[in-house]
Formats: sequence, structure tokens, C-alpha cells
Amino acid sequence: MYDKINETSESIKDNLFKWRRDFHQYPEAGWFEMRTSSIIARRLTELGYKVLSGAEVCDAASRMGLPSAGELEVNYKRAIEQGADSEFVKKTAGGFTGVIGILECGEGPTVALRFDIDALGVVESVSSEHFPYKNNFISKNSGFMHACGHDGHTTVGLGVAEVLFSIREKLHGTVKLIFQPAEEGVRGAKSIVKKGHLDDVDFLLGAHMGGDLNISSSLIGIGNGYSLATTKFDVVFRGKAAHAGVSPELGNSAMLAAATTVMNLNSIPRHGSSSTRVNVGKLSAGTSRNVICDRAFLEVEVRGDSTEANNYMCDYAFRIIRSAAEMHGCSSKIKLMGSAESTCNSPELSERIKSVCSEELGLKVKRFDDKASGSEDFSYMSERVKQKGGQSCYFLNISRCTAPLHNEKFDFDESALVYGVKAFSGITYDLLK
Amino acid sequence: MYDKINETSESIKDNLFKWRRDFHQYPEAGWFEMRTSSIIARRLTELGYKVLSGAEVCDAASRMGLPSAGELEVNYKRAIEQGADSEFVKKTAGGFTGVIGILECGEGPTVALRFDIDALGVVESVSSEHFPYKNNFISKNSGFMHACGHDGHTTVGLGVAEVLFSIREKLHGTVKLIFQPAEEGVRGAKSIVKKGHLDDVDFLLGAHMGGDLNISSSLIGIGNGYSLATTKFDVVFRGKAAHAGVSPELGNSAMLAAATTVMNLNSIPRHGSSSTRVNVGKLSAGTSRNVICDRAFLEVEVRGDSTEANNYMCDYAFRIIRSAAEMHGCSSKIKLMGSAESTCNSPELSERIKSVCSEELGLKVKRFDDKASGSEDFSYMSERVKQKGGQSCYFLNISRCTAPLHNEKFDFDESALVYGVKAFSGITYDLLK
Amino acid sequence: MYDKINETSESIKDNLFKWRRDFHQYPEAGWFEMRTSSIIARRLTELGYKVLSGAEVCDAASRMGLPSAGELEVNYKRAIEQGADSEFVKKTAGGFTGVIGILECGEGPTVALRFDIDALGVVESVSSEHFPYKNNFISKNSGFMHACGHDGHTTVGLGVAEVLFSIREKLHGTVKLIFQPAEEGVRGAKSIVKKGHLDDVDFLLGAHMGGDLNISSSLIGIGNGYSLATTKFDVVFRGKAAHAGVSPELGNSAMLAAATTVMNLNSIPRHGSSSTRVNVGKLSAGTSRNVICDRAFLEVEVRGDSTEANNYMCDYAFRIIRSAAEMHGCSSKIKLMGSAESTCNSPELSERIKSVCSEELGLKVKRFDDKASGSEDFSYMSERVKQKGGQSCYFLNISRCTAPLHNEKFDFDESALVYGVKAFSGITYDLLK
Amino acid sequence: MYDKINETSESIKDNLFKWRRDFHQYPEAGWFEMRTSSIIARRLTELGYKVLSGAEVCDAASRMGLPSAGELEVNYKRAIEQGADSEFVKKTAGGFTGVIGILECGEGPTVALRFDIDALGVVESVSSEHFPYKNNFISKNSGFMHACGHDGHTTVGLGVAEVLFSIREKLHGTVKLIFQPAEEGVRGAKSIVKKGHLDDVDFLLGAHMGGDLNISSSLIGIGNGYSLATTKFDVVFRGKAAHAGVSPELGNSAMLAAATTVMNLNSIPRHGSSSTRVNVGKLSAGTSRNVICDRAFLEVEVRGDSTEANNYMCDYAFRIIRSAAEMHGCSSKIKLMGSAESTCNSPELSERIKSVCSEELGLKVKRFDDKASGSEDFSYMSERVKQKGGQSCYFLNISRCTAPLHNEKFDFDESALVYGVKAFSGITYDLLK
Repeated sequence: MYDKINETSESIKDNLFKWRRDFHQYPEAGWFEMRTSSIIARRLTELGYKVLSGAEVCDAASRMGLPSAGELEVNYKRAIEQGADSEFVKKTAGGFTGVIGILECGEGPTVALRFDIDALGVVESVSSEHFPYKNNFISKNSGFMHACGHDGHTTVGLGVAEVLFSIREKLHGTVKLIFQPAEEGVRGAKSIVKKGHLDDVDFLLGAHMGGDLNISSSLIGIGNGYSLATTKFDVVFRGKAAHAGVSPELGNSAMLAAATTVMNLNSIPRHGSSSTRVNVGKLSAGTSRNVICDRAFLEVEVRGDSTEANNYMCDYAFRIIRSAAEMHGCSSKIKLMGSAESTCNSPELSERIKSVCSEELGLKVKRFDDKASGSEDFSYMSERVKQKGGQSCYFLNISRCTAPLHNEKFDFDESALVYGVKAFSGITYDLLK
Repeated sequence: MYDKINETSESIKDNLFKWRRDFHQYPEAGWFEMRTSSIIARRLTELGYKVLSGAEVCDAASRMGLPSAGELEVNYKRAIEQGADSEFVKKTAGGFTGVIGILECGEGPTVALRFDIDALGVVESVSSEHFPYKNNFISKNSGFMHACGHDGHTTVGLGVAEVLFSIREKLHGTVKLIFQPAEEGVRGAKSIVKKGHLDDVDFLLGAHMGGDLNISSSLIGIGNGYSLATTKFDVVFRGKAAHAGVSPELGNSAMLAAATTVMNLNSIPRHGSSSTRVNVGKLSAGTSRNVICDRAFLEVEVRGDSTEANNYMCDYAFRIIRSAAEMHGCSSKIKLMGSAESTCNSPELSERIKSVCSEELGLKVKRFDDKASGSEDFSYMSERVKQKGGQSCYFLNISRCTAPLHNEKFDFDESALVYGVKAFSGITYDLLK
Repeated sequence: MYDKINETSESIKDNLFKWRRDFHQYPEAGWFEMRTSSIIARRLTELGYKVLSGAEVCDAASRMGLPSAGELEVNYKRAIEQGADSEFVKKTAGGFTGVIGILECGEGPTVALRFDIDALGVVESVSSEHFPYKNNFISKNSGFMHACGHDGHTTVGLGVAEVLFSIREKLHGTVKLIFQPAEEGVRGAKSIVKKGHLDDVDFLLGAHMGGDLNISSSLIGIGNGYSLATTKFDVVFRGKAAHAGVSPELGNSAMLAAATTVMNLNSIPRHGSSSTRVNVGKLSAGTSRNVICDRAFLEVEVRGDSTEANNYMCDYAFRIIRSAAEMHGCSSKIKLMGSAESTCNSPELSERIKSVCSEELGLKVKRFDDKASGSEDFSYMSERVKQKGGQSCYFLNISRCTAPLHNEKFDFDESALVYGVKAFSGITYDLLK
Repeated sequence: MYDKINETSESIKDNLFKWRRDFHQYPEAGWFEMRTSSIIARRLTELGYKVLSGAEVCDAASRMGLPSAGELEVNYKRAIEQGADSEFVKKTAGGFTGVIGILECGEGPTVALRFDIDALGVVESVSSEHFPYKNNFISKNSGFMHACGHDGHTTVGLGVAEVLFSIREKLHGTVKLIFQPAEEGVRGAKSIVKKGHLDDVDFLLGAHMGGDLNISSSLIGIGNGYSLATTKFDVVFRGKAAHAGVSPELGNSAMLAAATTVMNLNSIPRHGSSSTRVNVGKLSAGTSRNVICDRAFLEVEVRGDSTEANNYMCDYAFRIIRSAAEMHGCSSKIKLMGSAESTCNSPELSERIKSVCSEELGLKVKRFDDKASGSEDFSYMSERVKQKGGQSCYFLNISRCTAPLHNEKFDFDESALVYGVKAFSGITYDLLK
């Protein structure tokens, strides 16, 4: 049966390449994945999956960092212009993106596979060496790019849908293919968990593409799956403007509130037993040289290698922000823009994946021993599944890549798409055989 | 003769209104006053003045806050499209705006009158109560507006040119009408002084329009003319970006350099015997929440009620900026964007103006006793004239105004234009009779 | 009569020198002036004045910066050991220092003369050139010194008491000699005003000794008497200690609260129409390098050239302190340590003094035109008197001085004592004759 | 033989208790351990060890945080008064404390045992429940206390000296007993390493006493021995004083330099792959409320879980300090007060110790899995030994303790002294048998 999985995966290679290049041309940022979602939903429906889409996928109120109604409207129109499926796109209006495909194969455990589908705010390279440029499929949505490989993730998800459907007679249990919106900024996963879609899951799998120029052939990487808990939030200070020469004392300086905040956020004491992080990545304040600044806007994130450590950072940060505002007679408003928990892989499932991949599927496998430093909202799903007694594993789909993730020249070796389909399909079969 | 001056001034009222409304429709910011300058130069030439324009007016290297070549080019084209004088506009290319009109009337002292001609970056009101809107002459240059009354100053200058020319037989000495660019941000006056145009001036006059809703009829205001010395500058910090989760230690945070700068600039010790000011009016830093910020941009100004006090602030500020950069491994670049000296009126000339206005011209006069709090680059001219043994006075042309200066609804009572022409012409006659 | 005043003043010169050297040897800091007060009270009683002392002088609860009971006890004992008057010293126990001598001479206005009596925490010079050292009367109270000339003020007060008593038949009205404790740190005057002693005063006089090496002979200086309003306060932040290596996150850093306070206090925006000041003069925080600091102590002062400007500074400062504490999970406690209002001389009284001194008494007089920069709690008395319709003037008793005020080598020419007695006595006679 | 070691250790119990109580009564801080060193040297000499003392132990120039000559002199006199050995104490004059005892037993490896001997600046409890108080051996050196158990370490060292000497016939190799001064503040070890005493060592052992109220019987704890690299330094900023009311602009505020330093030190970006720490534990600045502060003193430490991470912190901190001084026109001086490297145990030696203790000596052993959070200058010795190819292990001598280390009520169960002697002696025998 593993051979059949490998064969089928190879046989759809051309389709995989075609899909990937299509998604790559139409990158859509978080909560705007309307064209993408409509195409996924259409494809799953055609295959014969039970499909959840629109408001069935995400808990409306839990969608973090949701753009304004105006922006959603503009992007909805663009999705239609760019060839969205005319039926399914309707359900995405208002930022209800994301799709879940369900394949019920009788008694047995539930295996959920998660694929994230959103793009990044990166201007794609037009260097003549850039593969998508050479092959004429660079982004048509100016300022946005699939620079984090989610076009590949989405494609792998569709490939897996096809392979698993083809062996559905041999499966005993349920498959859930979760196409998640808004992973960038860790904004989307929580709303899917809130909707209850992970509550009945026994095994959860996720993966990320990656690699570098030194990788000669594709391989599956399995580490401990650590990821940092994080909270992302925006801050707005509002003060009062005044003429900086004539009557500075009549103002309330949002500039001073912001600068005090930056200094003190960075000064939150280190944690004796946890890794923590804090960053004010963006700050814009004031309008004019000779006016006391009446408004400041900050983009902030904190992290911790445990949820407790992250909470310590977050609570302290919020206290600093409120106090800095109060100190200078300003108001402050904090808006949650994203969050993830800390998580790690279930060791038992990791071992099983390693063995299935290398022994049954004949894939190259590499073991990592890494420390947590990044964050992923896969963690919400993972922690939910483990909390309910299930197991979870996040692995790496490694291939030759031309640049680091998030870089304008990022590109992966497309053969990794086939590798990914094999791995996800083979493991799922192993869990449901 | 004073009666004749008054009569002539009244007789050109319609022209004054027409000119003012034309200038109001085509507001041009500092160093972009290409249409405006070309029209002034044409008018003075027609009247019979000797006209200096283009590179003859400002010392090229002393023009502070000069926009980029690209912006100058764009605005030059617009000036032509908007009806600039086709001959004189050529001389303004590259930001050589400003005009000087000279009327030589034999032996006698030199009287210089200064009129500033640039507009502000303010979006003009489209309220139905706004006079320029109701009367269909609001700004056609989106985002810019004559919200500081310089359309009125320019118009008064042209009116004075006409009146003085008509009585040139009665004058003994030389009149210089200086139409100065880039007063906003105190950027233009110094370059005119550097060119030597104030070196032979015995009497210097300037005025500003203003007032409020409580003023029922126009009047001339004379105070002590104090103005604060000031230095305006932009700062750019450049650091190094790094992933805020994975390797913050690899970055050099321009955000920390900027926040340290804001806190310390505001902390420069007060001066025991002088008034001082400092303001960071604008700050923009960073691009992305999860990236160590690699670039910060600040708009800063300092002031002092003496040139020494302003130098104290400026030297301290520069030291802070350099040190804050060094502290966080960043580079810093400071760009001078404008400056003014402190100045005050010559008491003798003030008294003379008061007496001419009220006793000879029959204008209402009000005496002020104010403290310095604003800044004006008229001060460069004034200090130069006094240094050479001359006298200087800056007065106020007060009328009913609908909003404070720099407000989107600012508008003055147009009858103040006539008042201004009378005052400048009458005083000049008195000085040269 | 002015001649008689001059003669009597000269005749007591030896006593003045003796008294001054005695006070100089036993300097007592604010609220500790127990020996000093007892000697003043004894002397005034002997002369025949009605004497208020102990709790009759200062409102108990309004005494700012009162030392601890233990310190008061220690100093009380020392006063007795150093020859305090055994009867009057008893009334000073617990910090009830200060004395008022009243001389009622029938109908007429009330003239109050204020003399401050406390010493400073300065270690006196033992240089062989230091006059008190050479003449064997340097401070016996180690670490304290009359470095601000209050030994002279006290002496002048006793001299005036004698002269005025000798001409009491010629006076019509009431004389109040107010010997005020705790002027340093502006702590004592308010409590005397609160007790009502200034409520019936028509004319108030005060003076300060001073000068420099360039002064060849004594003179009386009269300026505008401006003084800055000020508030002096101590701040204690309390946080929580923790091991800085093992668990810094368990602490609450009073160090961060204090540093944030220092930066932000200095950053309080300048006032557009007033001079202001702020200073953290002393900060001590923490106990050990490797422990998160749990306590910080700050000595702070703010000033303003109007009571409103001072209030602006004070309110802003208090808000910063509370917010900085809250920001880092600390508590804050602010303790008022002193205050003064802004004030200025009554012009009419100033002119009268000038004329009496120069024309009647034959003293040299110099006119000053100074700006406010220091602070004096004489202002509480002065403002109270003016509020009630009276007049007030603070003048300078200038002589050759060896060093600036508050310096360890400060010493004045003792002939200034005679000068001071003449001036105070002569002016009082003039006001009550 | 292990039985003999255990028996001999038990047999000297009374002496151990007596010695420990003697050392406890005469606690001496770093570089003042003159009485202590003289007694150790005398005892080792009596036993028959070759003894290095005085300038033979520490490299003079490498002694960090050395007190002033005056303080050393005062403490030298006290040591003599308190019963120091009259011969050996002479060699300690000038802060040459520390002793090394050498026992050469023919061919074989060299085993070094390190015992630290200095006390802490803690005021000892006089609570009636405090064992040393009840038993009449509390500190006679007011303000100092053996609150970190080094009295026990020293005593164990003397006990081991006796036991090993008694079995010297069975040993093959060399024993070095290193009694190290100035461990608190990590100041002493480096100077012993610099003198070359660790260059020939094959096995290095150290231990620390500790425990809590829940420990019912003594045990040996063995962890990974991680300790953080650290650098301790003092900072002095010097500025210029000025009157805070009259002329603040004439000052250079060391207060602002210090506050900027505190904020920015705490803001040094976290390290992505290492634990780091920073603390300003003590700050004292300024002398007087109304004077611009001209001097600030800070006690600072940084740490990192690798020497590289510590260097990153240290380099950044020094840059901040220099820049903050420059920013406010001050000078800065940084004085190194202590340092340690990061280190960890040699796994092979750890396993061997565990096995000898539990299987041969019958001691209870507990395995720890801790993360580095503290620092120890044992690390200099350990890293030197490992660099030369040797092995090192630091273990814990755990017993019932009444309070945390460094607490005024700290006391350990004295039976731990016997436990310590057994462990050190038994392991040494095992390594040299």
C-alpha cells in the first residue's frame, strides 16, 4: 500500500506544479484568502469530500487581526476578478476564509492534517535568476508574495486529498484536511480551535517547507517541535496636540508615552528559567516637527518558551503601556493582533512518523535537536489535541531553497511537493490502516 | 501725500482681491513657488521695477530643506500647467524661487520690505462656511493650502509695488521689495541674506496677517517683535535588522536609539536665564512587528530666546543623537532643515511706524507687550540690518480671521489687504520723503 | 532721629560681633535651632519685648521636613550641653523652634521684620585663611556650618531689637521681630503664616547677606525681589528583591521605577510662558550588585516663576512618580519636604526703602534688575501680607564676602552687621514715625 | 579502605564542629581572610602538608575587587587581635589570603579539591531560634556573617586534609587542597588560575553546602554543574555640579547619565540562543536636592550561559556606559570587580562520583537536572583543567538548612560536615588508589 501511495503521489506531479504556480501568482494575505479558499473548496467538493467553508470554519469573533470591512470588500472583488470559484467565494465575504475537507471511512481514529494558505506582505524579486520570474508565475498582487511557502503547503494539501481519496477503502477512521487562513501573525488557528474542529482529533500533523542552497535532495526533518508562545498586539496612544514653541505645556505628548514604553518594554526583566522575547517592531508618531505629538502607533510582540513565561511578558507589557499613557496624560488602546501557545511534539508520534517515512515510504529523514525560537499558531491546535489525549507532530518538508523564508527571493525545489504528499498520505494511512 | 497713498491703495482693491484669490488657488510649498515667483516677476517688470529672480535671489548652497531634484521637476511642470509666466518660470527651475523688485529714486536711504510667498501642507476645508470654498477659489493643489496668509502677504507686496511706483517722484532713496520663498520651516531667509541683499538696507519692514473672530475692523499691531532662535533638523538612525524571535542579538536596534534620543532630548536641562524649547514632532521607525528595527526617522526642532541659548540646545541635542546611535551600534545622520535667529524690533522705528500709521494714515494701531514664543526667519534679515547699523520692525496686519493660523479653515478679511498696502506704502514714504 | 539710629547701631558693634561668633560656633540645622532660639528668646525678654516661643510660633502640623523624634531628642540634649538658656530651651523640645518678639508702641501700623536662623549641612573649612578659623570660632557641630549667613541675620535681628527698643517712644504702631526656623529647604515660613502671625502685618521686611571679593564697602541692594515658587519632596519606591541571576522575574525593580522617573521628570515639557525647573538632586537605590533592587530614594525639587507654573510641574511630577511605580509593580510614597511661593517686592515700599537708606541713613544703595532664579520661603509671608493689603520688600545686605553662599569658605565682612541694623531700624522708624 | 575513610571522618566529628564554630565567629570578607588563612596554613603545616601561602597563592595583579590599602591594614590588625597565627598571618598582609596544601604520594594523577573561605556582608540574626545564637558562636565581626556556608567548606577542607593524610600510603599521585579567598563577587579564583596552580591538575572537585527545611538527612547532590559566565563591574560617572535653580545649564548631570544607563542596560536585546542577565543592583548619585548631580556610582553585573553570550552583554554594556557619559558631557570609569566563566561538569567524572558515593561510601545521592542560573568562579579552575585535558565536577553537600543561602538565619545541619569529609576523601582515594 505504501508503494501505491508513492506511485499515486508521483503520478499527480504535474498537477501539483500547476496548482502551486497558480496559488503563487495570486497570493492573498491573512483573511483575504478568498480566491484560494474558493478553489480549495471546489476541488475538495469535486473529489467527494464533505466540505466546510465560510462561517463554518472559523469562530467569527476569534479571528485576530481582522482587516477593516472596506479592505475585505476590496479584496473580495479582486478575488472574483482573479478567477475565484463563483459559488464558494460568496461564503468568504467578510473574511470568512479557510476550508475543511472531511473524509469519513468508518470506525477508527480521527487524523487531522493542517495546511496554512496565506501569503506575506513582501515585494517579490524580479531578478532574472528567480525561478517564478523566469517561469512567468510571479505574484500578480503587487506587494504580496508567497515568501513563506504556503503556496506549497496548500498544494500539498490538495495532493494529499487526492491520494487519500484514492485509497479510502483501506482507511478505518476519519480524515480532516484543515486549510487554515492567517497563519502569518499567528492570527487564524485559534478561531478554528474555538469552533471545536480539533475536539475529536486523535492525531494531528502539520509541516513547513524550508531548506537552503546546500540541500541536494528533499528530506523529511523531525525535531522536538518546540515553538514559543507569543502575543502580538498594536498599541495606540492618544494625547493632545499643542504648538511646541508657544505652549508645549498645553499638550499631552504621545511621543513621550511611546518612547517611555519602548525603553521599558525592552527593560522587562529577563526570566530566570525561561526564554523570553519582546520587540517593538514599528512605531509611528506625530505629524509635524513643531507640534506636540498627539498620536503614536506601535506594533509589539512578546514571546516566551512557556505559556506562563509569555503571560509574564504580556502582563508586564500591558502594565507598562497603561502606566506610560497615564504618566503623560494620554489614553492607550491595546488591540490583540495574534497569538500562539508554546507547544512541542508528542514523542511517540514523532518516532512513528520517522519510522513510517524512512522504513515504509523510503524517504530520507533527518533528526533535529533544536531550541524554540520561532512561533506558530499550529500550537493552538496541537495543545488542544494533546489536552484531549491525542498526539501531535509538526515536521519539516526540506528541500533545496534559494533564500531564507520571508525573503523576496525565496523559492523551494518543487519536487518537495511530491515528497510532502507522500509523507502526509503515508503517515495518515499508517494511523488509519 | 498720505491721503494720496490711501486713495491709491483703495483704488486697486479689486485687483488685490483678484490676485489674492489666484494665489490662493495655486498654493506652492517652500522652494516650489515657481508659478507664484514667475507671476510676481512679470508684474514687477511690467510696472517698471528692476527685477532680480532665479539664481540672483538666493545663495544656492544656503537653501535649507531643499526638496529632491525629482520633486522639484514635478512641481516645475505643474507650475507651467497652472499658468506660470512662460519666461520667468524658466529661471525658477531647480528651486530658484523668490523675487526682488528694486526701485531706485536717487540719493537717500534704502528701505527693504519683506513678503513671504510659500504655502503649507494643509488640506483645505470644504465646509460650506469656508469663504474660499463658497467663492470658488479653494486650493487646486491637493494637500496644500495658504493657511498662513502668505497669499495675502504676496498680494500686499504687489499692491505696495504699484502704490510706491505711482509716487516715485516723491521718494528719495531706494526701495527693495523682497518676495521670500520657504518661510515655513524657516528655510529661505538665510539664503537671501547670504547673497548680500540686506547689506545695504537702512530700514527693514515685515508684517504678518492674523487675528480672530472677535476683531471687528482691521488694525495694525506693533509689539516688541521678539522671536525665538530655532534650528530644525531631521535625524536618520540606521541599525541592522534581525529576526526578533530567533536572533535579536544579531540586530542593532534603531528603535532603541530613537527612543533613547526622544527621552534625552526632552531631558536637556532647562536654561537658568533663557527660555528654551525642544520637540520631536515626528518619529517613524521600523517595518515589521517581528523584526529588529533597522531605520528610524525623526523630525526635531530646538529653540532659544537668544542665539546662545539655541546653540546650547542644538549642541546638546546633536551630542545626544550621536551618543544614542553609538550606544546601540547604529549610525546617525543629521540634516539641517531650517533655522532662525532670535531678534526684536528697533524701538525707534517701532515708534515711528506707530505714529505714521495712526497720525498720518489714520489707521487703528494697537500696542502689544508679548513674550517670544514663535520663530520667524525674518530674524536673519533683521539681525543683518541691525548689525550694519540699520533699523528693523515686524508688525501685525490684524483683521477678522475665521480660524487660527495653520488651520484648514483659516481665512482673513480681505479688506486687510488694503490696510497692509496703506501701512507699508505710508511708512516707506515717511522714511524716504 | 536717623542719626541716633546710626549712632546706637555703631555703639553695639562689639556685641554684634560677639553674638555672631557665638551663633557661628553652634550652627543648628532646621528644626534643631534649640540653643539659638533659647538665646534669642532670653535676650528679647531681657530687653522688654513680649516674646512668643515654642509652640506659639509655628503651626505644629505645617512644619515641613521635620526630623524624626529621635534626632530631635539628640539635638535637644546637645543644645543643653552647648549652653542653651535652661528655661526657654524647654519650649523648643520636639522641634518647636523660632521666636517672635513684639514691641507695641500704641496706635499705628504693624511692621514685621523677618530673620532666618538655621544653619546648613556643610563641613566648614579649616584653611588658615578662613576668618572664623583664624579667629577661633569655627563650627563646633561637625558637618554643619552657617554657610548661608543666617548667623548674621540672627545677630542683626538682636541688634535691631536693641535699637528699636531704645527709640520706642518715637514709634507709633507695632514691631514684630520674627526669628524663623528652617529656611533652608524652604520648610519653616509656611508654618508661621499658618499660625496667623502675618495676618495683621502692614509692612514686611526681610534681607539676605551676600556679596563677593570685589565689594570694597558695604551697601544695601534693592531689586525686584522675584523668587521662584518651588516644591521640594522626597520619593521612596518600594519593590521586591529577587536574585538577579536565578529569578529576576520574581522581583519588582525599584531601580527601573527610579530610572524611569528621572528620565521622565527631566522630560516634563517646558512651559511656553513661564520659567520652570526640575531636579533630582540625589538618588540612592539598591543594596547589592546581584539583587533586584527593592528600594529607591530620591530627593526632588520643582520650581516655576509663578505658583501656577510650579503647580504644573508638581502635578506632572507626581503623576510620573505614581505611574513609574505602577509600571514596575512598586509602591511609591511622596513626602513634602519644603515649599515656597513665587513673589516680588511691592514697588512703593522698595522706593521708600531706597530713599530712606540713601537719603536719611546715608547708606550706599544699589539697584538690581534681576530675573527670578532662586527660591525663598519669605514668599509665604510676603504673599500673605500683600493679600491682606500690606506691602513687602526683600533686600540685600551686601558686603565683601570670601566665597559664594553655601561654600565651606563663606564669610562676610562683619561690618555688614552694623549696616543691617541701621537699615532695618531706620526703615522701621520711617514706617512708624 | 572506604570503610576506614568513613570511620576516620566520623572520629574527627568533634573537631569539625569546633573548627566550624570558630570560623563562624570570625567571618572575614574577601581578601580579608587573614585570620582564617593563617589558621588553615598552621593546621596543614602541623599535619605535614607542603603549604603555599601569602603571595605564593594568588597572582597579585589578578586579584579583583581588592579593598583599599587602608581597609586591608585595619583588617590585618583585627585578624591579629582575634587570634590569627602569628607567623602565617604576616604573609597575608596586603590581601594575600588563600592557602594551598600539597600532599605528594608518588607517581599518579593530581587531584585538586577547592574550598572557598570568605564571608558575606550580612548582619547575623540574633533570633533565639538561630542555632549559632543559641550556642553562642554568632559572628563577632559586626555586619559580616558566614551566611553562605564557607565556614563549613573551610572546615570540610581541614577534615579532608586529616583523613587523606592518614591514608597517604594508599594514594598514588598528588593531592592539592586549594583554600580560595574572595569567592563572593567571583573575585578570587582567577588569580589562583593565573598563578598556574591548576595547570597540572587531572581531576578537580568542588562542592557547596545547601538545602532546606524539608531535608531530613544529609545527601550528596550531583547535577550538570552548569554555571553562568558573569562579569561584575562598578561604574563611576563624573559630571559638573551647578545650582539647579539658577543655572542648571552650567552643569553636566551624572544623574541623567546614570538613569540613561540603567534604562539601556536593561534594554540590551535578549539573546536568541542563550540565557543572559543584567542587573544594576546599586546606584547612588548626587548630594543635594538643589544641585545638578556631579557624581554617580553604579554596581552592575551581566551574565550569560556561555562565555560568548556574557561577552555580548559585557561589550554592549560598556558601550552603553561610555555613550551615556558622552551624551551628558560626563566622564565614565568602569572598574572590574569580579568575573566567572560558564562551565559544566565532566559527565564521566560525575558518574564516577555518583557511583563512589553511593556504592562505596554508602552515602545518599540525588541526581539533579538543573538549568544554569547562578555563577561561581570555580568555573575558572574548571575550564582551565578541562582545557588541559582534565576532568572537573562540582557537587552539592545537602543537609537540613534553616534558611536560604545569604539569609541572616542561614544555618546547616553540622552533620553535613562529616558527610562532606567522607565524600571528598572517598572520591580522592578512588581517583588515586
